[in-house]
Formats: sequence, C-alpha cells, structure tokens
Amino acid sequence: MRISELSARSGVSVATLKYYLREGLLHAGVATSATSATYDDTHLERVRLIRALLESGGLTIAAARKVTDALDAPPPGRHSLLGVAQYALSEGGTGSGTPAPAADALLEALGWRVDPCAPARQELESAIAAASAGGLDLTRRDLSAYARAMRRVAEVDVRGVPRDSPAAALRHVVVGTVLVDPVLIALRRLAQEDVSSRQE
Amino acid sequence: MRISELSARSGVSVATLKYYLREGLLHAGVATSATSATYDDTHLERVRLIRALLESGGLTIAAARKVTDALDAPPPGRHSLLGVAQYALSEGGTGSGTPAPAADALLEALGWRVDPCAPARQELESAIAAASAGGLDLTRRDLSAYARAMRRVAEVDVRGVPRDSPAAALRHVVVGTVLVDPVLIALRRLAQEDVSSRQE
Repeated sequence: MRISELSARSGVSVATLKYYLREGLLHAGVATSATSATYDDTHLERVRLIRALLESGGLTIAAARKVTDALDAPPPGRHSLLGVAQYALSEGGTGSGTPAPAADALLEALGWRVDPCAPARQELESAIAAASAGGLDLTRRDLSAYARAMRRVAEVDVRGVPRDSPAAALRHVVVGTVLVDPVLIALRRLAQEDVSSRQE
Repeated sequence: MRISELSARSGVSVATLKYYLREGLLHAGVATSATSATYDDTHLERVRLIRALLESGGLTIAAARKVTDALDAPPPGRHSLLGVAQYALSEGGTGSGTPAPAADALLEALGWRVDPCAPARQELESAIAAASAGGLDLTRRDLSAYARAMRRVAEVDVRGVPRDSPAAALRHVVVGTVLVDPVLIALRRLAQEDVSSRQE
C-alpha cells in the first residue's frame, strides 16, 4: 500500500508517519521510485503499536524507539526475554550499581532471584524513598504483601508469553509490560473502592 | 520560620515556593509585615508532599492542586475517603458516564461494589482497549487474575488508612494512591524476573 493508504488505515497523518520513519520507529517501506515506497501489514501493525506505546503507555519517542529497536533486533545476553524488555524500557538503561539497600533487603527476604543490576531494583528503591519523602513510610509487612500480590500478577504475565517464536514472545512482553501497567493501576483503584465500601 | 528558612529546610528555591503559593498548592503563611510572612512545620510538610507528588507521582501542577485542595477541604458526599482521593486525582474529574462494557462486565463477574460513575471504570476500559490496540488482547481469565491480585494490594492499602482523624486518613490515601503506584510497578518488574528465571 502507499503511505496515503497506511495513513487512512491507521488513522495517523502522513506527516506523522514520515516523522516515525525519520525517527526510526517505523521500518522503511520498499522503494518503488525515488520519491515513493510501498508498505504492508507489518507497517500497519507497527504504527498501531507505536500509537499504543506513545498514547497509552505514555512513553517518550526515545523510549518507544528502544522498544521498537528491541523488537527489530532482540539484544543477545543472559537475560530472559522479560529482562530484555525491561532493560530496553528502563529509562536509565542497565542498572547503575548504586546501592539500593531497602530494595535489596526486601528481595532477599522474599527469596526472589533478581539480577543485581536489574533497573527495577533502583526503581523500587527510589519509589520507596519517594513515598517516605511524601510522608508514607511503607513497613516491611506492607511491602511484602504488595510484593506477593505483584508476584501473582507476574505469574499471569509470564503465563501469557507465547512459546512458539522469540519475536512473538518479545513483542508480547514489551507490549504487556508497558500496556498492562495502566490496567493494573485502574484495577487497584476499583479494588480500593470495593474493599473500602465493605468496611463501612 | 521565614521563607528563606523554609527554602533551606525543604531544598526548594524561594522562587519555586512563591510559585507554589501563587498557584494555591501551598497555604499562605501568617503575615508579619506588608512584605513578609512566617511559616511553620505544616508548610514544610506540605512542600515535601508537593515535591513528592510532582516528581515521584508525575502529577501536573493542576492535578497536584486537586490533591492539596482535597486535603485542605475534604469534599463531602457519599464516597469513602478512598473515593474522594480517587475522584480528586482522576484527570477527567467524575466519571463521564460513557459506556465501559468490558470494565462493567468484569466488575460484575467479580462482584465488586463500585460506583457507576467511578473514573477508574473508564480508565480500565481505556487501558483494556489500548492493550488490544497494541496487539495484546487480555482474556477474561487474565483480567480476573490481575483483578484478584490488585484486590490484595487494595486490602493492604485500606488496612493502612489511619482511623483516628479524617484529615490524616485522606492524606494517607492521597499519598498512597499516587506514590505507591511506582512501588507496585517496580515490584511487578522484579517479580517477572523471578518468575521467569524459575521457568528456564
């Protein structure tokens, strides 16, 4: 299809599609002349993913490009696909090695196997510190209960990963990591209302 | 204390403190002359909360003002404190009444008591639609499992709400709603790594 049809089918303007192409978010079409190219369903699917990442996932262009780069060329290494997605999505890249004593102590108490350089370690440490700065000191008991609940979430996450193709698996993981967060946050709000209403 | 001391103790510049005062995020001090005022520990605590909301919570100034307004004058009404906080925090204000068929069906299947106008209903509907647009169709089974996990989170949330003072309760709820989300997201990432590593 021509770029005008890709625009019509995706609902994204031609100017924006050209921007995605320039920024490397969208892979190039097959050139049909010096000034035009043809696109296929892989482009349409990618444009839908980009919209979802930017609009619903709230990602920056740079973060979205990390995701599409990871999809196009899964980085090799010892991490699981879930790890690859997380490292690609993490703002800070790989973990900085900065001490994260609260997170480390919690993870050790839980017995979780987590890479010492996992970016989420730092993210957890920062989030605990920010809650404390805001006047909310989370106890070990609270954190453990939250962690057990989120492990159940992770079991669903991992269960859903396709086993047939690494590319499909990575895509599932990346999309799931970014786009399921808002689902969980909304469910938390709704559950709070339910739990709260039953206590009155 | 003078505004210079409030600045030194909070680490927030005097110019920024004056901006918070103008925007109504920070309550006025007690005037000591035509050009100066005195501040106390309630101001220091509020400034720390504002920083946490803006930096860690990622709130806009307008959303942060909704929170501080709710803290200063808890809105009356039938909703629980949790509801008040959620409605204040929701971008769209009260629910628009737009149909949310996927969310409604899930909540009915779960048997949760949730106000028909709860903003999180719309948020859940949008998040499910966005995941689908990104190529991830969440099954009822997945959504139910996520919901059950988030209900455990909500039980911890509600358990921690102080019972002695409505103001303290509201503050806890608002801060917890905004600042615990990043803790949960980080825990999800870490749990994914643990669950994934045990499957290899």
